[in-house]
Amino acid sequence: MPELRKDPVTNRWVIIATERSKRPMDFARDNDEMKSAFCPFDYGNEYTTPPEVLAFRPPETAPNTPKWWIRVVPNKFPALDPELKLERYGHGMYDAMMGFGYHEIVIETPDHNAHFATLEDSQVEEIIWAYKARYNVISKNPSVKYILIFKNHKRDAGASLAHAHSQIIATPILPKRVVEELQGSQMYFEYKERCVYCDIIYQERMESVRVVEENDQFIAINPYASRFPFETWVLPKEHAFDFGEIHETQVQGFAQILRNSLLRIYKALDNPPYNFMLHTGPANGDGRHSYHWHMEIVPRLTKVAGFEWGSGFYINPTPPEDAAKYLRGVEL
Amino acid sequence: MPELRKDPVTNRWVIIATERSKRPMDFARDNDEMKSAFCPFDYGNEYTTPPEVLAFRPPETAPNTPKWWIRVVPNKFPALDPELKLERYGHGMYDAMMGFGYHEIVIETPDHNAHFATLEDSQVEEIIWAYKARYNVISKNPSVKYILIFKNHKRDAGASLAHAHSQIIATPILPKRVVEELQGSQMYFEYKERCVYCDIIYQERMESVRVVEENDQFIAINPYASRFPFETWVLPKEHAFDFGEIHETQVQGFAQILRNSLLRIYKALDNPPYNFMLHTGPANGDGRHSYHWHMEIVPRLTKVAGFEWGSGFYINPTPPEDAAKYLRGVEL
Repeated sequence: MPELRKDPVTNRWVIIATERSKRPMDFARDNDEMKSAFCPFDYGNEYTTPPEVLAFRPPETAPNTPKWWIRVVPNKFPALDPELKLERYGHGMYDAMMGFGYHEIVIETPDHNAHFATLEDSQVEEIIWAYKARYNVISKNPSVKYILIFKNHKRDAGASLAHAHSQIIATPILPKRVVEELQGSQMYFEYKERCVYCDIIYQERMESVRVVEENDQFIAINPYASRFPFETWVLPKEHAFDFGEIHETQVQGFAQILRNSLLRIYKALDNPPYNFMLHTGPANGDGRHSYHWHMEIVPRLTKVAGFEWGSGFYINPTPPEDAAKYLRGVEL
Repeated sequence: MPELRKDPVTNRWVIIATERSKRPMDFARDNDEMKSAFCPFDYGNEYTTPPEVLAFRPPETAPNTPKWWIRVVPNKFPALDPELKLERYGHGMYDAMMGFGYHEIVIETPDHNAHFATLEDSQVEEIIWAYKARYNVISKNPSVKYILIFKNHKRDAGASLAHAHSQIIATPILPKRVVEELQGSQMYFEYKERCVYCDIIYQERMESVRVVEENDQFIAINPYASRFPFETWVLPKEHAFDFGEIHETQVQGFAQILRNSLLRIYKALDNPPYNFMLHTGPANGDGRHSYHWHMEIVPRLTKVAGFEWGSGFYINPTPPEDAAKYLRGVEL
């Protein structure tokens, strides 16, 4: 049964995932998993995953059979479990909580060898629609505090299966980094009476040097204080707090700029490992005026070293101005 | 010239290291660096590093010649530069600072193939003495706010040279994670009127299940809310704020338990990549009663994925109680 535990010094929560408890010898074996010939996300293998919670498929097909073009299933080895009660308890000086939450997989394409970066616009739009649909269902559960949508591309970015997929995790607490962003943007709002992300967009459009691409509704930038080389953020240009409220024309614009940003990274850096993660407002609506949803894309080019882990202080060897110039120069 | 930049939302500082600015094609080349036959840390190659700032060597030998057993040199490609002025400036809405600071390398042994985990007790003591000596010299510079001592072992933990070495970085700001620990332990102190780390040590000794090893002065534990499998902390059992005040008998005890902890990890996990980082009080002395110095060791067994990056929320597949049991069981 997964358990959430809180660090008594920093209040950072950790999921202790006992369901897949690993012994020392299990870590060495990890390296071979991705070479496995059998893929649970391919057509015909639908029976090997938990039953789908959402699928885009022709109306005449039955659930958990082939012919779908997007499929969302609960993770077979979930880090959190929606059946658990939301219960907090102490253990001496320590604090813990039952591992309530959701952990789902969005299978982005039936094509085993496809990449998000090279999918058709229409397929990327379908992925965004699937994110939105599950986001809005899960956020109705009153025990859910936050919904994370993210992707790990390639083993070095944490993927354990090669078939293109993203993940949705819903947590019963606000993750630490989300709290930091909410507090930071709230402080800025109190001082300036403006959204900090709206101000960032304004300054980036004025300076241009860190802009990668822009369309009617969205902008892609390499942020001023990028932690990582070629780190790229995609933001809606008009203030928007909640990803779940994205509407039809925005889905198109978002799909296009997200796919293009990933394609630029794919081409400039020879298909590197990367993560993306959606940063959106918390389920309770706090920060509606001060917080601004966006997507953060981080290519995994450098190894994160002891210094970064220990300090939360990053060394980035590529100035974002240089990175944006390379990315802008990519022919799409 | 390195520049420090602040993220306007979270106030996280980043070093933009223009001295070693990397283009897209530079990242692919990285993989071969460690195979290089020439090692600047071997005897006879002292002339290839910047001149040593400290060396333990026979009195009859000249600086920057062989026969030393510990050697400390400035990093040839420093992330921060002690010659720069401490100057803050704005850039539109953004904040930046000249890249003032120190970046030094502690060459831990002349033996190119040695590991920290398998060094003699006496050699590890010498390393600790070198840390202390440089720590106390650097902390005299009034522009230094914090000193980080850390080690990256193997490429997957961020090392770019195989020869055993650790690093010292002194920064003109307090790193984010240090601020979190200081604030968290201060809050605990205000509520309980006790040091949170002293309380952790008390509870861990009472419960025993997460204790890896103990000697007269130090204890090694796998913390209750471990972020990573086999994460190990070494703490002085008596309250101590400042690593720079470690005294002779403590150096022995610390060297022994640190080496043993690394040796247990080395044996249980087949010489995995790891990082260690010293967490000590800030240079200005804030938190003397509430903060407690310690060493955090993190084996790099799992890939840190998008979820962790985006949220600051970790999934640990090995409960610390299981990890501590394996580590205790290692024959030294």
